[in-house]
Amino acid sequence: MNALFYEGNHSFTLKTVETQPLREGEVRLKMAYVGVCGTDVHIYHGKMDARVKPPQIIGHEVSGIIDALGEGVTGWQIGDKVTVRPLHPGPEVAADNGYRHIGQHLKFIGIDSAGGMQQYWNVPAFSLHRLPENLSLALGAMIEPLAVACHDVRLGELKAGENAVVIGGGPIGLLIALAAHQKGANVLISEVNVNRIAFIESLGIQAVNPLEKDIVKSVEEFTHGAMADVVFEVSGVQAGVSTMTQLPRVRGRIVMVAIHSEPKAVDLFRFFWRELKLIGARVYEPEDFEEAIALAASGTLPLEKMITQISPLSEAQEIFETIDKNPAGMKYLLEIV
Amino acid sequence: MNALFYEGNHSFTLKTVETQPLREGEVRLKMAYVGVCGTDVHIYHGKMDARVKPPQIIGHEVSGIIDALGEGVTGWQIGDKVTVRPLHPGPEVAADNGYRHIGQHLKFIGIDSAGGMQQYWNVPAFSLHRLPENLSLALGAMIEPLAVACHDVRLGELKAGENAVVIGGGPIGLLIALAAHQKGANVLISEVNVNRIAFIESLGIQAVNPLEKDIVKSVEEFTHGAMADVVFEVSGVQAGVSTMTQLPRVRGRIVMVAIHSEPKAVDLFRFFWRELKLIGARVYEPEDFEEAIALAASGTLPLEKMITQISPLSEAQEIFETIDKNPAGMKYLLEIV
Repeated sequence: MNALFYEGNHSFTLKTVETQPLREGEVRLKMAYVGVCGTDVHIYHGKMDARVKPPQIIGHEVSGIIDALGEGVTGWQIGDKVTVRPLHPGPEVAADNGYRHIGQHLKFIGIDSAGGMQQYWNVPAFSLHRLPENLSLALGAMIEPLAVACHDVRLGELKAGENAVVIGGGPIGLLIALAAHQKGANVLISEVNVNRIAFIESLGIQAVNPLEKDIVKSVEEFTHGAMADVVFEVSGVQAGVSTMTQLPRVRGRIVMVAIHSEPKAVDLFRFFWRELKLIGARVYEPEDFEEAIALAASGTLPLEKMITQISPLSEAQEIFETIDKNPAGMKYLLEIV
Repeated sequence: MNALFYEGNHSFTLKTVETQPLREGEVRLKMAYVGVCGTDVHIYHGKMDARVKPPQIIGHEVSGIIDALGEGVTGWQIGDKVTVRPLHPGPEVAADNGYRHIGQHLKFIGIDSAGGMQQYWNVPAFSLHRLPENLSLALGAMIEPLAVACHDVRLGELKAGENAVVIGGGPIGLLIALAAHQKGANVLISEVNVNRIAFIESLGIQAVNPLEKDIVKSVEEFTHGAMADVVFEVSGVQAGVSTMTQLPRVRGRIVMVAIHSEPKAVDLFRFFWRELKLIGARVYEPEDFEEAIALAASGTLPLEKMITQISPLSEAQEIFETIDKNPAGMKYLLEIV
């Protein structure tokens, strides 16, 4: 079978390898689509070599069909259409506080172990979620990032009628905005890329460019002075962090979605002054996957429009290069043929 | 009557002035004790001259006896023993989100208007809380800072059996620790001043010096590996901010009690990674005053021991100078005679 290996330093190679033997509790998937995540691009940039240990197969936004069942697997059949929740919990420690999805010994499938950019992929049966008949396999590969968005919205305790501001209109920011909008919230995205702004607005979500118009004023106008109930910080940059504390009303919530690899200057006075809450949110729990699947299957979200391009796995190298050149692109899928 | 005026630049003068006429809805208090708050020391240092506009009478940790009732005041009688919740809400705005205790137009009595360091003080009747017979007037002046502590513990949603770490063992940090301990939590204080550590331990609260022993290791040992359910950041310094994110378990809470006048470097990655919560907490709501009064009246907290010194109002200048020289002192009270 074909498998794409990240070789380090901006380089992928497609190789022919043997399928791996199925272990107890695993299923073999015939892969359909794999989305390219921001983390995959980060890996491609060589920033996570210590963790991924190249050469390694990556990819964790997937859809596929069950091709074989390992020993002890029940509840699944060959031919089932599925996606994968790529979390492999390890032994629990006390400081995990019972939260298995982000425990200390968690392994992220597709980063800490082989991912889905290959024709046949063995995964633990406990990681599977069933895709309904009416959901295409292409959209099946969008479930993982949509589950991130559902998790963020859930932990932000966003309710219908509330005002939400999303700082950063990339794929995750936009999915958060769409999930929040679907929940009945009034949603405004802050984004600096003009092409992205145009795309976001074409989907019926309001966007504002903080480089062109003061973001505090924009949120005041958008909320008629009430300010934001929930702010999602998805930008990952200092400007976003400096903005996030200016937008919430008293006791407003800020959901920390972005991965800030370095400490950032935070206006802690504002947390005190307005009794704000900062809520960290990472990956997802099983219920977020179920919610994402139901949401995608409902057909109410413009997920198809978010797919910038679908390319065969053999063109992965060019796709990663394209993503680097086109910061306005949204979701690139690799079709595994 | 005598009144103490902050004159700017580290200087107080005691003057003889007329009592102010009582306005509708006000009561006149014959003052008994006024505690010196960290904010009062900040004012003394000249850091808040733009806000307090010297010459001004300050002081907001008070006890007194009702001496006269203004027009329209009901439910109170001359001779009632009271303390004051020094918050004067202004007109409500949408961004206040209904939280009157920290609304945009809030005036803090004793900072934004005349305080209690005078023989007779007129305050709005809505700011009064009754002190029970068995609570001394000296301890009555401790209710305001204890209400801060009750508010912080309440917003941190601390429960019996949970592990709490308080960063900073000054008066507010210690009161938080005592209130948390009273709630059935296991409490550890991180404090660098050796005299304070000795005092804290004499009250039966465990303390650790992070300059002598690694604070993460200390909390691991104290919690048998579970780490903190709630961390209270009361230090107001970068070292405390850098520590606060290292101590909580997954989904642990950090209560931001300290006033950080400048932005600080915060490990936002840790919020993401462990899904931590930061909860801003400022002053108090009426229920916190009621809880503080009940707690103080129960006699279970060693509040008397926290009173470092009681001095007459005429010695206020020396007391502020003493506080500057003695960073290990806890609560200084001025007796209004």
